[in-house]
Amino acid sequence: MEEKAEKKKPVSDKNEILVGKKDTKNYVLAALTLFNTGSKEVMVKARGRAISKAVDVAEILKNKFLTDVRIENVEIGTEEVQNEDGTKLNVSTIQIKLKK
Amino acid sequence: MEEKAEKKKPVSDKNEILVGKKDTKNYVLAALTLFNTGSKEVMVKARGRAISKAVDVAEILKNKFLTDVRIENVEIGTEEVQNEDGTKLNVSTIQIKLKK
Repeated sequence: MEEKAEKKKPVSDKNEILVGKKDTKNYVLAALTLFNTGSKEVMVKARGRAISKAVDVAEILKNKFLTDVRIENVEIGTEEVQNEDGTKLNVSTIQIKLKK
Repeated sequence: MEEKAEKKKPVSDKNEILVGKKDTKNYVLAALTLFNTGSKEVMVKARGRAISKAVDVAEILKNKFLTDVRIENVEIGTEEVQNEDGTKLNVSTIQIKLKK
């Protein structure tokens, strides 16, 4: 029974968009879809160079598509990632909380 | 007399670092210098692709150089800039307020 309950839990529960190498519009559309299917809060996250794109995603969504969405909170931080050769590297992160 | 007073006003009053195309360490050093010469608050600003670098500057400063500095506030926004050919373009912005 417990296992079944776990399986039912939808991934979209997290309401997170992880911005990476795809074109900006892909992430805008993903966030838009989350809001349009009932989410009241969406977190746009990125690391390293994708941080600028994450800001674009939030701003385009807010200014052009969902004018009732506001930027609730912006957090920046640092994560340690491991390279293929085993060396460690610090990478900056951003989390933009959007709220309807 | 009035003119003289205006001239005396130091530029560094603003305590702003505008992150651009130079190497990250230049901006870290500039922010470090502001704090070490008595500033209690430094604003790190950037537009477009330099946004990721601005986050790096704030994180490196906070984690490696001035551990008593904290990120007070992060704001993102959009600015309209004019291209050389007169067309207008929206560009994302970030403002990171660092406080000692």
